[in-house]
Amino acid sequence: MQDLKEFIEKNKENFLSDLFELIRIPSVSSKDSHKGDMQKAAHWVQDYLMKQGADNAEVIETEGHRRVYGQKMLDDKLPTVLVYGHYDVQPAEPFDLWKSPPFEPEIREGRIYARGANDDKGQMFMHFKAFDYLIQSGQLNCNVKFMIEGEEEIGSPSLGQFCKDNKERLRADVILVSDTSMLAADNPSITTGLRGLAYMEVEVTGPSHDLHSGLYGGAVDNPVNVLCEMIGKLRDENNKITIPGFYDDVEELSKEEREEMGRAPFDADEFRSHINIPAENGEKGYSTPERTGIRPSLDVNGIWGGYTEKGAKTILPSKANAKISMRLVPHQNSKKVEKLFKDYFESIAPDSVRVKVEFLHGGEGYVAPTNTLAYQAASKAFEETYGVKPIPVRSGGSIPIISLFEEVLGTKSILMGFGLDSDAIHSPNENYALSQFYKGIETIPYFYKYFAELSQK
Amino acid sequence: MQDLKEFIEKNKENFLSDLFELIRIPSVSSKDSHKGDMQKAAHWVQDYLMKQGADNAEVIETEGHRRVYGQKMLDDKLPTVLVYGHYDVQPAEPFDLWKSPPFEPEIREGRIYARGANDDKGQMFMHFKAFDYLIQSGQLNCNVKFMIEGEEEIGSPSLGQFCKDNKERLRADVILVSDTSMLAADNPSITTGLRGLAYMEVEVTGPSHDLHSGLYGGAVDNPVNVLCEMIGKLRDENNKITIPGFYDDVEELSKEEREEMGRAPFDADEFRSHINIPAENGEKGYSTPERTGIRPSLDVNGIWGGYTEKGAKTILPSKANAKISMRLVPHQNSKKVEKLFKDYFESIAPDSVRVKVEFLHGGEGYVAPTNTLAYQAASKAFEETYGVKPIPVRSGGSIPIISLFEEVLGTKSILMGFGLDSDAIHSPNENYALSQFYKGIETIPYFYKYFAELSQK
Repeated sequence: MQDLKEFIEKNKENFLSDLFELIRIPSVSSKDSHKGDMQKAAHWVQDYLMKQGADNAEVIETEGHRRVYGQKMLDDKLPTVLVYGHYDVQPAEPFDLWKSPPFEPEIREGRIYARGANDDKGQMFMHFKAFDYLIQSGQLNCNVKFMIEGEEEIGSPSLGQFCKDNKERLRADVILVSDTSMLAADNPSITTGLRGLAYMEVEVTGPSHDLHSGLYGGAVDNPVNVLCEMIGKLRDENNKITIPGFYDDVEELSKEEREEMGRAPFDADEFRSHINIPAENGEKGYSTPERTGIRPSLDVNGIWGGYTEKGAKTILPSKANAKISMRLVPHQNSKKVEKLFKDYFESIAPDSVRVKVEFLHGGEGYVAPTNTLAYQAASKAFEETYGVKPIPVRSGGSIPIISLFEEVLGTKSILMGFGLDSDAIHSPNENYALSQFYKGIETIPYFYKYFAELSQK
Repeated sequence: MQDLKEFIEKNKENFLSDLFELIRIPSVSSKDSHKGDMQKAAHWVQDYLMKQGADNAEVIETEGHRRVYGQKMLDDKLPTVLVYGHYDVQPAEPFDLWKSPPFEPEIREGRIYARGANDDKGQMFMHFKAFDYLIQSGQLNCNVKFMIEGEEEIGSPSLGQFCKDNKERLRADVILVSDTSMLAADNPSITTGLRGLAYMEVEVTGPSHDLHSGLYGGAVDNPVNVLCEMIGKLRDENNKITIPGFYDDVEELSKEEREEMGRAPFDADEFRSHINIPAENGEKGYSTPERTGIRPSLDVNGIWGGYTEKGAKTILPSKANAKISMRLVPHQNSKKVEKLFKDYFESIAPDSVRVKVEFLHGGEGYVAPTNTLAYQAASKAFEETYGVKPIPVRSGGSIPIISLFEEVLGTKSILMGFGLDSDAIHSPNENYALSQFYKGIETIPYFYKYFAELSQK
């Protein structure tokens, strides 16, 4: 693959102008107002796959947002790689915290700043160009299938059924995904674990309308106070989640496994200063990497109720709402956790209010072994371009579809992420380092090469 | 005063069209966007006082919103009544809960629906018409001063200094205020107690920007969770406020006094069904009327943080904010409570976050004796028009300026409120019963009559 570096060097500008076309389509899946953009982005992906040399690519209707399927089949005897990615992005709010407009990519200090620059448009796009290279240079030695969806950021509600209905079409030896990050630009890693997710919305209702806090305060329970008190009861003083049964299925790692994990470099000072917090805090008895890697968590993602504008309004509000999500670890089941949460949350509500609990979305955690052909191929590919053997790492994030792939299709995934923790995905000023972007395009072809070679042995 | 009823009957339509002019000016004092409306309303009041027969009326500049002072001086030997009212109103949000536009008054089922219909435009206006009647009929037998402000709903920040600087001008034998309610339309009452107020805004900051809740959740404290936990620590399981020292100055009523209070009619079923709550809840050991009348309370008036739109966004928010206010009882001092709150709130914050506590506004509680000439005059006036002797009642609301009047001017106030608890003041669909509005205009002239007569004895 001597001409690979040259291919990248020659085409850098084209890569960016093509990727920027896709980024400029504000494909926010959670908002109805972006339905048209979602369609536009799906068709953009279809066209682009065809241009890169796919035999065929189609846009598939769903009840929500469309998915795109494309493929290049060389020979049934060759191994098959299914590339998964998603063209939808998180909402960009709050807009005023962005230094440049979220859907108008801007390069500053060697980084692309935009919503989706990394997650997942930028990382998905690397696969399109690696595929392009392999075809152009006649070096493709695997069958390739692409499944690109538009519902990842809202929990992939229809992908499970699609997989069930298309087992043959989606048959592959491995699923290749770039939607995670690596430890550092000089420290590649392969994600071998993901957390699951159970995302809930709750509503606490007191009186039928806002009341005067003087005339009623003290005699009528305030739904905001009550909601806060209920949220306060979700964790104990050791930051353990108090929902009965919540930890029942949590996989406890052995002392050896934790020691092994502890070898991954972690700089607490840098961690704190990067996100500007005075101190870390989390479940007692676990280190910071363990708290996100192997332990579940519970976060209020949003809360609202009462008067929130400038000045003082003396009301006792009628309602309070919160979005509360839990990250789960392997063996925890999101549907079971949903029920445990709902039962507990309703049980701690006082008689003075009414409580509604709604499950917004969720998915299961995932653990990948390191003794697979795919892991070996990915490891060699990273070593080829980064000059260092990658470390296996468990990520705190969730890609619910990965565990679903295993369950429904029986296929393991390999998570070759090129993001960095400083990329601010899901946050204002999301960005993706150009060096990682180009390095990704360079590394992925080696994965195909080694995967085919190892498969033939 | 034989012609009083006739005066009212003949002028009902004029009363409403004049009051509606004032209501249509959206004089929301807490919002900068309504500055022009505030000026317009102040000048409307000035003009109107002159039209009713004041010797002079002037608009007085302040650092915030203007106040209006007007007077009619008959004779230094006659008693002087200072009428206090306010032309500013609470914000009308949420607009979508109003059945008719808040600043376009509409009469439905014998009630005026509008922001300010009762609080305090409607009640203040009754005094203008009572004054009009007394002058027109030649029956005014007191000197009358009017002090109408535009900053009541934001805590009257400049009125205290104005009183200090204008002691002679504001000298009066009693301050007459209609800004409270009575027990029921057939059950008049005189408010003999008011609660004080300490209104705070708090901010809890974690990371410098919203984080991905998967990558960081569990290892970085979430400011929304933390704020909820802190708010949860402000009350104990008996709904007692946990701030150390908070109850030190709370006046404990004797068993006899509580028994006396308990005689005021209270229908718990009606109370619950009117505001549609499943159950009352409050400080253990006290009845519902006691919880608002003689006990302090703590309410979150508003809370916000993180993602609050439709759908799921998996962030660990950077910030969380809340507006928290406490209603105080006589002898509690709002400045002292402010400090107690701030100290405690800061003390319960974990090291992992930064906390800011800001005092928005406040004022002291008030108790009025029932053995004054003013109370006797008000009692006789109510009896004259309602045919029933009014009951002395402690209200849960706050009019901070009432205790300030006593402190600075040395003058007691008499609180003749004609509102009803169903008027939804500070809430959507604020309203004022026409019957109460007209009855108020009928009752107030008798107060002047009896106050002058009793003063001469």
